[in-house]
Amino acid sequence: MKKAKNLNFEQSYIVEGFSIAGPKEDKGNLTGLFDEVLDDDKCNECTFEKAEVAMFKKALYGVTNKAKLNVDDVDVVIGGDLLNQIVSASFAVRNLSPSFIGIYNACATFAESLLLGASLVNSRCYEKVMCISGSHFSTAERQYRYPLELGVLRSPVSQWTATGVGSTLLSSQGTPFNSRVTGGRFGRVVDYGTYDVNNMGAAMAPSAVDTLLNFFEMNGKSPKDYDAIYTGDLGLLGSGIFVDMLLKKGIDMEETRYNDCGGMLFSQKQMTLQGGSGAACSALVFNSLILNELKGNYRKVLLLGTGALMSPVTGFQGESIPCITHCVELSAGEPL
Amino acid sequence: MKKAKNLNFEQSYIVEGFSIAGPKEDKGNLTGLFDEVLDDDKCNECTFEKAEVAMFKKALYGVTNKAKLNVDDVDVVIGGDLLNQIVSASFAVRNLSPSFIGIYNACATFAESLLLGASLVNSRCYEKVMCISGSHFSTAERQYRYPLELGVLRSPVSQWTATGVGSTLLSSQGTPFNSRVTGGRFGRVVDYGTYDVNNMGAAMAPSAVDTLLNFFEMNGKSPKDYDAIYTGDLGLLGSGIFVDMLLKKGIDMEETRYNDCGGMLFSQKQMTLQGGSGAACSALVFNSLILNELKGNYRKVLLLGTGALMSPVTGFQGESIPCITHCVELSAGEPL
Repeated sequence: MKKAKNLNFEQSYIVEGFSIAGPKEDKGNLTGLFDEVLDDDKCNECTFEKAEVAMFKKALYGVTNKAKLNVDDVDVVIGGDLLNQIVSASFAVRNLSPSFIGIYNACATFAESLLLGASLVNSRCYEKVMCISGSHFSTAERQYRYPLELGVLRSPVSQWTATGVGSTLLSSQGTPFNSRVTGGRFGRVVDYGTYDVNNMGAAMAPSAVDTLLNFFEMNGKSPKDYDAIYTGDLGLLGSGIFVDMLLKKGIDMEETRYNDCGGMLFSQKQMTLQGGSGAACSALVFNSLILNELKGNYRKVLLLGTGALMSPVTGFQGESIPCITHCVELSAGEPL
Repeated sequence: MKKAKNLNFEQSYIVEGFSIAGPKEDKGNLTGLFDEVLDDDKCNECTFEKAEVAMFKKALYGVTNKAKLNVDDVDVVIGGDLLNQIVSASFAVRNLSPSFIGIYNACATFAESLLLGASLVNSRCYEKVMCISGSHFSTAERQYRYPLELGVLRSPVSQWTATGVGSTLLSSQGTPFNSRVTGGRFGRVVDYGTYDVNNMGAAMAPSAVDTLLNFFEMNGKSPKDYDAIYTGDLGLLGSGIFVDMLLKKGIDMEETRYNDCGGMLFSQKQMTLQGGSGAACSALVFNSLILNELKGNYRKVLLLGTGALMSPVTGFQGESIPCITHCVELSAGEPL
């Protein structure tokens, strides 16, 4: 099987990142790291869907304010979310000046936006691109699973869709002190034939393995070349499968600091079972913890955004769960 | 309001295009122009959704066969469709070797895929990119409107979601005889406050006007600089609004050959009211008629992919309809 090459970028600077999290998300392991925390996950709106749009708008203005720019200064917004027809991202940019590129790769959407954004600024198609992705527990539950009011018991292998939005501003212009997106790899769609829609970690782990193995094969590197590697939302169970599968392929994740954004986000006391998930999960952790680490201890980091590409309809029609993982390579700027 | 610049590409060659159409689509104005026509719009599958995936696969293999390539030779597939979680495109590439970039901008998805694909081959991120988009009348009707079995009367302003898939192979390598994607513009999300989900043409026309005006403003051109301009699926009513609005802005579409893919696809006798629509609409017309014209009479053509970004849920929650239009500039190769 022929394989596409890895991506390499010289001039994809990270200007700023912004994270807005729901109240529960701020009571987990990353308390205090988010730029903004909602008191009320309905954002004073009359539906959770409108609240999700409101969160997207806050993240959109949040990152431009933090970078001392106007939204008008952004050329293109690349984003998506988990709702049907990615309405949260689309509605958030309604009648604004930046162009919009709507994308969807489930919970890998944020990593997808970073790779596309980095490609477009690196090739000087645009100077400033905003990457944005998020999700809301209460909209996702009722769209993908059951009405919240039904109070359905959660499967022990399930995860908890994170409420939040993360936004990152990329630019073709930067200083040696800016962190950069220096490369990566768009993943292919991998389906190992799992059918349990509660167990996203098990479905997605083989796809994360596939992308990471191909990425390393193409650039001749291994975990020890990175200060940290993060998967998006494999959860506790899925991360274990991911590490085990890699070990059988001769890749030892003990050689680096490995963590899963979903596994880190919530604390065990919060009863999220296998941890966080959702398009917000890696977007939140990236735009808080990971960007901070790139300004501190870490020089080279990988983010593997993981996504499960089924829909409720494909589940009802007896289909297994195809998954995708996009790999983003990040490099710290010179220490200030 | 600051505006993003237009895109310009030097080396985004069109290797080949492929179109697969439903039986009704082949009985319209473009009879005989499609590469493949379905006898049965269920493709021998047990559900319409599975039939849509089967059509995507046929288009995926169809374009690579036509170009005398294997699917393995394609680096990345960029595509989407109208189903929730864009499952048709995602499921079609399951366990294949190319990477996958899932996108969604409703019926503007095909134009979006062409612009992203052209960006990625022009910047040499990849050598070969496949752009693919499509829709199916029977899956779209039951997802967006009513169960077909209900036999609901259609509104006189409505359009008919086309059944079909179009796929285009782009490459960074080509000859002077290949047509090329030479530029374009990602549109912004425009909402003029229309609420009638049956009248997509009226909702989308202002967004098509916005993108075309910005495109012309940035490159100093006008309709007479193009041999033909096509909108995606404004339909007959929407095209009229589009032409009227442009005339008030000083742009006379009489200076060129203007047509709407949705308006052309079906004949009046087929009772599709305002004409065709759907993510298949511009993908089908582009990969049959437009690519043929670029090999014959026409040197410079614009395709304006139009999309309405609402979902049934946003409609129920009282939201108006935000729309988007992406503009793709195409140039013919040297005559053979």
